Amino acid sequence: MKEFHDLADFQIGEVDALLELAARLEKNPEPTALQGKVLALLFLSPSLRTLASFQAAMTRLGGGSFVISPNMSIHGLETRPGIVMDGMAAEHIREAVPVIASYADAIGIRAFAERESLDNDIADKEFNELRALCDIPKINMESAINHPCQSLADWKTMDDLSIPRQGGKFVLSWAYHPRALPLAVPSATVHMAAMRGMDVTVVRPDGFALPEPIMHKARQAAAAAGGSVKETDDRAEALEGAHVIYAKSWSSTRAYGNRPADEELRHGKEDWCIDDPWFETAQDDCRFMHCLPVRRGVVVADRVLDGPRSVVIQEARNRMYAQMAVLHQMLKQS
Amino acid sequence: MKEFHDLADFQIGEVDALLELAARLEKNPEPTALQGKVLALLFLSPSLRTLASFQAAMTRLGGGSFVISPNMSIHGLETRPGIVMDGMAAEHIREAVPVIASYADAIGIRAFAERESLDNDIADKEFNELRALCDIPKINMESAINHPCQSLADWKTMDDLSIPRQGGKFVLSWAYHPRALPLAVPSATVHMAAMRGMDVTVVRPDGFALPEPIMHKARQAAAAAGGSVKETDDRAEALEGAHVIYAKSWSSTRAYGNRPADEELRHGKEDWCIDDPWFETAQDDCRFMHCLPVRRGVVVADRVLDGPRSVVIQEARNRMYAQMAVLHQMLKQS
Amino acid sequence: MKEFHDLADFQIGEVDALLELAARLEKNPEPTALQGKVLALLFLSPSLRTLASFQAAMTRLGGGSFVISPNMSIHGLETRPGIVMDGMAAEHIREAVPVIASYADAIGIRAFAERESLDNDIADKEFNELRALCDIPKINMESAINHPCQSLADWKTMDDLSIPRQGGKFVLSWAYHPRALPLAVPSATVHMAAMRGMDVTVVRPDGFALPEPIMHKARQAAAAAGGSVKETDDRAEALEGAHVIYAKSWSSTRAYGNRPADEELRHGKEDWCIDDPWFETAQDDCRFMHCLPVRRGVVVADRVLDGPRSVVIQEARNRMYAQMAVLHQMLKQS
Repeated sequence: MKEFHDLADFQIGEVDALLELAARLEKNPEPTALQGKVLALLFLSPSLRTLASFQAAMTRLGGGSFVISPNMSIHGLETRPGIVMDGMAAEHIREAVPVIASYADAIGIRAFAERESLDNDIADKEFNELRALCDIPKINMESAINHPCQSLADWKTMDDLSIPRQGGKFVLSWAYHPRALPLAVPSATVHMAAMRGMDVTVVRPDGFALPEPIMHKARQAAAAAGGSVKETDDRAEALEGAHVIYAKSWSSTRAYGNRPADEELRHGKEDWCIDDPWFETAQDDCRFMHCLPVRRGVVVADRVLDGPRSVVIQEARNRMYAQMAVLHQMLKQS
Repeated sequence: MKEFHDLADFQIGEVDALLELAARLEKNPEPTALQGKVLALLFLSPSLRTLASFQAAMTRLGGGSFVISPNMSIHGLETRPGIVMDGMAAEHIREAVPVIASYADAIGIRAFAERESLDNDIADKEFNELRALCDIPKINMESAINHPCQSLADWKTMDDLSIPRQGGKFVLSWAYHPRALPLAVPSATVHMAAMRGMDVTVVRPDGFALPEPIMHKARQAAAAAGGSVKETDDRAEALEGAHVIYAKSWSSTRAYGNRPADEELRHGKEDWCIDDPWFETAQDDCRFMHCLPVRRGVVVADRVLDGPRSVVIQEARNRMYAQMAVLHQMLKQS
Repeated sequence: MKEFHDLADFQIGEVDALLELAARLEKNPEPTALQGKVLALLFLSPSLRTLASFQAAMTRLGGGSFVISPNMSIHGLETRPGIVMDGMAAEHIREAVPVIASYADAIGIRAFAERESLDNDIADKEFNELRALCDIPKINMESAINHPCQSLADWKTMDDLSIPRQGGKFVLSWAYHPRALPLAVPSATVHMAAMRGMDVTVVRPDGFALPEPIMHKARQAAAAAGGSVKETDDRAEALEGAHVIYAKSWSSTRAYGNRPADEELRHGKEDWCIDDPWFETAQDDCRFMHCLPVRRGVVVADRVLDGPRSVVIQEARNRMYAQMAVLHQMLKQS
């Protein structure tokens, strides 16, 4: 594998092979598989799960990693092309990224959306500029519009829990949050559930529809896998019969990058906090999923998050196994 | 071993087994013993020795570790139960700690005392809340009232130097410091020396008596091990015949959590700086011990710290070997 | 090898042995050579290449490392001897450095020049005080006046590119930069190129002559190796026939430590930005070298840095292989 950037780059059979490998490594550790191998971890945005799970993954496979973050270890990084660097920044990403990659067998890169232009973020403009600077195997550790490691982990979590693929009902619900968050997780999640063959419903208030290119991509995946995708603002209809309610807040797409307008649109939507009544018409064993971090009492009620429906810790733990599978496929010499 | 939280949880024979293992690993490295094993290191308070010695310990045993610190790598962590998280903090410890633990085979946690309520700190309230969130093997890397890694290292240091157990005189002396420091090290130390069977004297000014529950616990350990524990403000009496003078500053316990009152109590006590005259009536080869970091010219005079009595670097180095023994017992499959 | 502090401490044959080892490790990895070995990395000044390349080097050899930096992980460190530590700093380097070293098999130390006294910096006063505190194998990761890891990497890069030793023309050119930078890289570089037997020209404006002790040391190395060293402010003469133009900015040595005077001396020298015309009279395949980080459009034009002459990424990558050779010689038991 040369790159793990988007689940859409893989066939379902390839995803299944990764999931089988993840399950095998969970049961049968291979503590010398990647002896002497190095993973570079470049964080242009902060992280807890990603930081910890990738370091742990490499250790469990016998290799190692190093972390580079602008805040913790290096001078300011310049990103603008063609600039005369007579200001604060002492290094340009055009040197920094290839240098970091030059020490590693693979590189993971994480960069949040700029949340100024919706078109740029849907096109993953900034992230693709970073990708283009590396010629070693690459892992997307969350970009403006994608988060394939989270998606692979979530897929594994649903498999572990025997949640049906075809015929399973997956509800991705917008949730209230005081800030305008990136589209990466909802975009990756709607596609992942569709690719898994599930019947996917995105439920969100007016003004928060997912972008059409994202929905189009998910519909294509559903068509290939025997599932379906729809979007609604009717919560009652959406939740009926759900096997999974996956909560996530995201920016208004109507007022993307416009902070006052976004705030106006989310104003009064504090009731989009997933709570027990949301599960009333769902399947009896309907699960609550979230990628974390999650704001308690805002995105989800404590009693849901702390209750038996919640599988958020399993999702987080599966980040490690999913990434071990990706790293093993990328770096293990046959 | 499921947890290394307090030397009092162990029988003397168990401590001796750990010390033998530490000595064996010092002489005969086992660089593949913990291959593929992961230690999570969660720092809610900063550190140098703990940070370095645990990472080094895992490397020497062939495993690895990752470090999580609120300041270096993650969004603010909320700790209050039942709160509506609509402020700055993006994640609650109720998710963060189990997630971090989910990637690891064992977790070390460090959290300083809050120094507001003496009862809460003696009960190790905050730390016990953190402990309760993990279901993997745990190591106390310093809590409000305990520091078992330091104690095991100090015990090994005294063994290495052939300082007698029964009949050895151990003096724990309060020292001046401009700030009100936690009770963890003095509380752990008085218990450790008592459990080692030594005759322990705590010498401190009025207002700085160690809390009665701490002294009671130490007296019980002394009774079991054939030693003794007493407390005094008479420095001359305390120091006579000492095999070890162990210096440490700590908060006033009379004015605990009351900063102006604590400052008034420590005012004028700058002569509680361990210097050559303190050793005049001690054993000829009496040693100077301190857990570090230490303020030169404030807690101890340069000539003592730089002189032949000082074993502070050996104590620090033994942190690594003591922790290697703990990790080996916890994580090595037989 | 007990220390890697200065290429001048080694015979040419010893440097060649390191270069052969570096090339061998590049082709034939030894992922268990340093199993269980620990490298301490002490950064008193920030870094990207050094931080990443040393961690990667240890992982590739099967060992591990830990990083200590005053900004990321520890309380303030006091450096002044004999001081009464009643201020902010909680620990003195006289304890911190030996403690850090006590956990490791070797230690790398990085400390930038203070840039107050030229004599102190040429004598590497601060760095030598740090060195004196460790009794384990040591690596200079950049001091006030030296950077042997960069030099060994640059030497390897020139060997890899078949740039001639004797008869090769090496031009070290001062370049414009808005700040007064240390002398470490130019001082190490002029000596390295001379020791390699090349004909070395240092070209710089008036006021920026390298210190006489540095030039003297380089001339001695040239005499032993069959090369030559000269210094000039005549750019046209300097660049003619060059095999390598190595760019670097550095402080004025006439106004060392005097910021307004240094700024006045560098004022108007923005044309010391290496650009295509600089290569007109050089060898056809003349290379552009720089240690990085480099300011684009200030030190060097984008078209040179992005063009085929530039070997800056190779230099950075060779940091890792050069350091692997040093670590292997230091730590591998025969």
